[in-house]
Amino acid sequence: MYSFKNDYSEGAHPRILNALVESNMEQTSGYGEDIYTERAVELLKQKIKRDDAHIHLFVGGTQANLTAISAFLRPHEAAIAANTGHILVHETGAIEATGHKIISIKVSNGKLSPEDIKPALDEHTDEHMVKPKLVYISNSTEIGSIYKKSELEKLSKFCKENKLLLYIDGARLGSALCSEENDVELSDLARLADAFYIGGTKNGALMGEAMVICNNSLKEDFRFYIKQKGALLAKGRLLGIQFLELFKDDLYFDLAKHANVMADLLRKEISKAGYSFLTHSPSNQIFPILPNKLIEKLGNKYSFTIWQKSDKYNSVIRLVTSWATKESMALDFINDLKNFTEV
Amino acid sequence: MYSFKNDYSEGAHPRILNALVESNMEQTSGYGEDIYTERAVELLKQKIKRDDAHIHLFVGGTQANLTAISAFLRPHEAAIAANTGHILVHETGAIEATGHKIISIKVSNGKLSPEDIKPALDEHTDEHMVKPKLVYISNSTEIGSIYKKSELEKLSKFCKENKLLLYIDGARLGSALCSEENDVELSDLARLADAFYIGGTKNGALMGEAMVICNNSLKEDFRFYIKQKGALLAKGRLLGIQFLELFKDDLYFDLAKHANVMADLLRKEISKAGYSFLTHSPSNQIFPILPNKLIEKLGNKYSFTIWQKSDKYNSVIRLVTSWATKESMALDFINDLKNFTEV
Amino acid sequence: MYSFKNDYSEGAHPRILNALVESNMEQTSGYGEDIYTERAVELLKQKIKRDDAHIHLFVGGTQANLTAISAFLRPHEAAIAANTGHILVHETGAIEATGHKIISIKVSNGKLSPEDIKPALDEHTDEHMVKPKLVYISNSTEIGSIYKKSELEKLSKFCKENKLLLYIDGARLGSALCSEENDVELSDLARLADAFYIGGTKNGALMGEAMVICNNSLKEDFRFYIKQKGALLAKGRLLGIQFLELFKDDLYFDLAKHANVMADLLRKEISKAGYSFLTHSPSNQIFPILPNKLIEKLGNKYSFTIWQKSDKYNSVIRLVTSWATKESMALDFINDLKNFTEV
Amino acid sequence: MYSFKNDYSEGAHPRILNALVESNMEQTSGYGEDIYTERAVELLKQKIKRDDAHIHLFVGGTQANLTAISAFLRPHEAAIAANTGHILVHETGAIEATGHKIISIKVSNGKLSPEDIKPALDEHTDEHMVKPKLVYISNSTEIGSIYKKSELEKLSKFCKENKLLLYIDGARLGSALCSEENDVELSDLARLADAFYIGGTKNGALMGEAMVICNNSLKEDFRFYIKQKGALLAKGRLLGIQFLELFKDDLYFDLAKHANVMADLLRKEISKAGYSFLTHSPSNQIFPILPNKLIEKLGNKYSFTIWQKSDKYNSVIRLVTSWATKESMALDFINDLKNFTEV
Repeated sequence: MYSFKNDYSEGAHPRILNALVESNMEQTSGYGEDIYTERAVELLKQKIKRDDAHIHLFVGGTQANLTAISAFLRPHEAAIAANTGHILVHETGAIEATGHKIISIKVSNGKLSPEDIKPALDEHTDEHMVKPKLVYISNSTEIGSIYKKSELEKLSKFCKENKLLLYIDGARLGSALCSEENDVELSDLARLADAFYIGGTKNGALMGEAMVICNNSLKEDFRFYIKQKGALLAKGRLLGIQFLELFKDDLYFDLAKHANVMADLLRKEISKAGYSFLTHSPSNQIFPILPNKLIEKLGNKYSFTIWQKSDKYNSVIRLVTSWATKESMALDFINDLKNFTEV
Repeated sequence: MYSFKNDYSEGAHPRILNALVESNMEQTSGYGEDIYTERAVELLKQKIKRDDAHIHLFVGGTQANLTAISAFLRPHEAAIAANTGHILVHETGAIEATGHKIISIKVSNGKLSPEDIKPALDEHTDEHMVKPKLVYISNSTEIGSIYKKSELEKLSKFCKENKLLLYIDGARLGSALCSEENDVELSDLARLADAFYIGGTKNGALMGEAMVICNNSLKEDFRFYIKQKGALLAKGRLLGIQFLELFKDDLYFDLAKHANVMADLLRKEISKAGYSFLTHSPSNQIFPILPNKLIEKLGNKYSFTIWQKSDKYNSVIRLVTSWATKESMALDFINDLKNFTEV
Repeated sequence: MYSFKNDYSEGAHPRILNALVESNMEQTSGYGEDIYTERAVELLKQKIKRDDAHIHLFVGGTQANLTAISAFLRPHEAAIAANTGHILVHETGAIEATGHKIISIKVSNGKLSPEDIKPALDEHTDEHMVKPKLVYISNSTEIGSIYKKSELEKLSKFCKENKLLLYIDGARLGSALCSEENDVELSDLARLADAFYIGGTKNGALMGEAMVICNNSLKEDFRFYIKQKGALLAKGRLLGIQFLELFKDDLYFDLAKHANVMADLLRKEISKAGYSFLTHSPSNQIFPILPNKLIEKLGNKYSFTIWQKSDKYNSVIRLVTSWATKESMALDFINDLKNFTEV
Repeated sequence: MYSFKNDYSEGAHPRILNALVESNMEQTSGYGEDIYTERAVELLKQKIKRDDAHIHLFVGGTQANLTAISAFLRPHEAAIAANTGHILVHETGAIEATGHKIISIKVSNGKLSPEDIKPALDEHTDEHMVKPKLVYISNSTEIGSIYKKSELEKLSKFCKENKLLLYIDGARLGSALCSEENDVELSDLARLADAFYIGGTKNGALMGEAMVICNNSLKEDFRFYIKQKGALLAKGRLLGIQFLELFKDDLYFDLAKHANVMADLLRKEISKAGYSFLTHSPSNQIFPILPNKLIEKLGNKYSFTIWQKSDKYNSVIRLVTSWATKESMALDFINDLKNFTEV
């Protein structure tokens, strides 16, 4: 049973494990105050072209989101997210557990625009309601769509005009930035967002997300928040070593490209086979609409998520590729899909 | 500069890294629902002789403490801890950040007894005060002392009689259980505590703490709490693989024993050299009282923590040994201490 | 300028002030442990026919809601509310500030039915999402609609079957129970809800809401929660005296009836004048749709809330009547509305 | 049974009730946006000689403390309080429930000085510990002592130098300011504190505390916090009317003086009768040490709090006087104490 269920089914890229093995018996300071973390942070600053940014390494995405968002907001301030936003749906109320409401904006493509956000601002006008303060977006989004540079520019401008913070969840940032349709660079994010994180867990690391804080007013005392949320890793070097390996020669982007190539292959061939998709998703997640009977047959050989019903006879499935996806298995999947279809 | 600063200066025991490398390209389910975690949990249940226990793997200790304690308490309930307790002092108010007061009990040896706790119960009598509900202890404690079985028996009995939960922070449990003075077994903890955790980070793992929940009333929905606190690791297998390796043939205890042997060596020789100690600590942390001038000289070759002033001319330092401490370095330290003393 | 803006524009019914004056110099215990509160609680138990209920008096509605809901839920549990629900919209994120998500259900009439709630239960299936636990409804609702007994019966049954708590916000319960369309009695609420509160602030008291806890599992230690949320009034007798006066001879219902009669009068005459309403609201809040020009003219003589735009030329306004509404002013309003219309 | 148990045993001073009765049927805006609250706020600004201060009226002290302190602090910041501080002991962990640790400083007289606070600052040095940020003091303190102007000056200077906020709980501020030993004026508090509140509940109001925010950086959005904590009173005028009445001609101070005169009488005569006191408390709370047998006899005629044991045969009791204390009852108490002593 081969899995297209997610992009964290395997361990780490072998080079990362190798780097951990090689550095293993060195003694370093704990809690991210080691030389590897220091180097990784310096390297990332170069990549994003913001020497003034503060960068902190986290173990996971929910942890990164809840620590940052609760650090950035005052108690009465709320986040705004698309109805598909990860913090809104799949983090067990982690943000609310830190005391903050998330205002849900219903959109069809997983993305937020100023036009989507404006009505929420218009509605929240006095102290009987929460104060919208932070716009949360994901790139790529939870349904595989990506932001164009012009969209981010508009969103950033709108946020600044309305005293909103722009926060980007980059759990799958690698795939977004390596999409064929992408025109955004890391340095654009650092210019347009107040904070964002570069996801490692879903792109070849054992674990690790690099939080980049660009807005000066959000930098102070951030390590206190990390520690308070239980997110300060004792052997912090584990994160530094991994990000160093991922970025010292663009391994990060190579891995993301592979995931995208695999998704492109699946997308193209499924499309050729006559099937359509829930949404336009030029990244490593695709959502084909397939007959239930076909899904059942594929399900005997491959694991994947049944996303939602489409109609009585068809459903949407989610296929996720990764740095580790084998081309042979993608091809097998396509062949099986075609064969099962013909039958 | 060799470090006796803590027990998390190196990576992991080579066997652990090896286990990660060997399993690396296998696909498994995420979030701790993989076969390795399953096996590790089964193995740990055997070790603690409690087939009914629920076991959950965490990345770190503060995370484990804050998730468990906030899950176990109702909003008005408080924890009780020794004034040296890690949750009280060195977790940046993580427990209070989840809404709970910690009642501090001043003790001299880092340990709590029924006699220490009783006055706090007598004081908190009505709804104008918090309701004491959970007794937090560490074994070994933050100053290296350990609990005898009879002490844990009394504490457990007292807690049951007073409807208090007994929770044991086992960040350094390995060292405690392998101390020459120890008469406690893992199964005793599972019998006497409502919940406790078995620390991996400070005993040879890259990271990892195994939370054992023995009290039935505390088991329900615990994975929700883990997720909500950002503590559910995507590649949960990383924790399972490590605990499997640590416990499949007692590597865990071998590593702890080595740390203790190294500490014993230091303790004995420092004592022979004529110095006394802040406290009796038969585990992998020792607290010798040394002349400031000697400390300064040693500080040029070794890193360690200056714990507190003792008097005008002397200070307490903390020396921590671990699975990775080299005997040659411990001997060097002793020689230098003796040589510097003579001068 | 006469106000139809809300039902808390005046002080209290004179009988209530009189009761406060008469008892003023008596010495009583503080924090709701006085004889007046005791008597009020006993009287309310008789009225709801539940001798086993626990009843606690609060100063205000948001305070009552946040204290009760955060006391009833475990950290990972969520409330469910209609999109118009007061806790969702007009309490500045008070519930989220205690750590709990509110799942919003879009409905058109302000009311929740099992059919509305079911999809939310179907969606929240595992530990990556919050666990729905408490259904929050208001009676009358925030848009003036009321629940029929059969609706409450179905809702209560559904909640029990799905291990959900049913909580009723009774800020305007008086008006609901005295509506011409009502078939619910106080004792029905005590039978069908796990907890509900009887609102005093909006029905003739200076301030005061009586929280009734029917479900045994929710009763324990409730005074701790009240105190912790800053809701335990030092001179608690102030609340006891008022509820005693309101319920000793049905003043509570007389006041609500007056409010409803005034609303009926406005509703009937506005309807006769040819205008329609946003929603069917047989209680003390009505929402006529009027031409913007007419609204402007009325706005020079009366204060009220402009609720929302209806179309380019018309808007919805909210008119609220109360125990204190003067019939002469209601008649004046109607006359003016008719006169301004004719012009 | 006459009560010396506290200063909130009776209702309100008759003039306050009268003011409520007279204004009762006027219509005003809700939530503290009425003309009475506006006037009260203006009047208080004059009294404290700070036209720029922001003033908000609360119903009770715990509510005022928890709203302000949680509004003023960032998540990782802690309050510092004397071990007798009300927020530390008698508010059911209300501050911790908003996420903040309180650092307890052991003192003997209920008061904090820079020397008391300094060691706590020295201990809290990095991100593994909370960051001390707000110094909480009470005037008069929980054991009746008061601050001299020079003490407040020093404390304020120390706080500014160490970037700490100075917050004064004025639940019994009236009694403090009217003590024979007092040299502090309201305007001194407004000059020296970042925020403080003027207590009404314990000095003749039905309920009410006026929070004064002097530090500009603490003023923004404060009404959001009030609402979120359930502390925004619908009929906010009730608070405005009371503070207006209390301060329009110094009724507030007259009432406090009466309480102090009654306490002075008790103190002097108890002292004459040969008894000593737990602490020097020149305000409306006194703590005589009396033989247990005498306490028992007095307890048959008067109610008061038994504060703590003194030795085997003697205990400390707390006697509280108020604006409502009858001189005849104070004299009776003294006579009885003398008579019971003689027997």
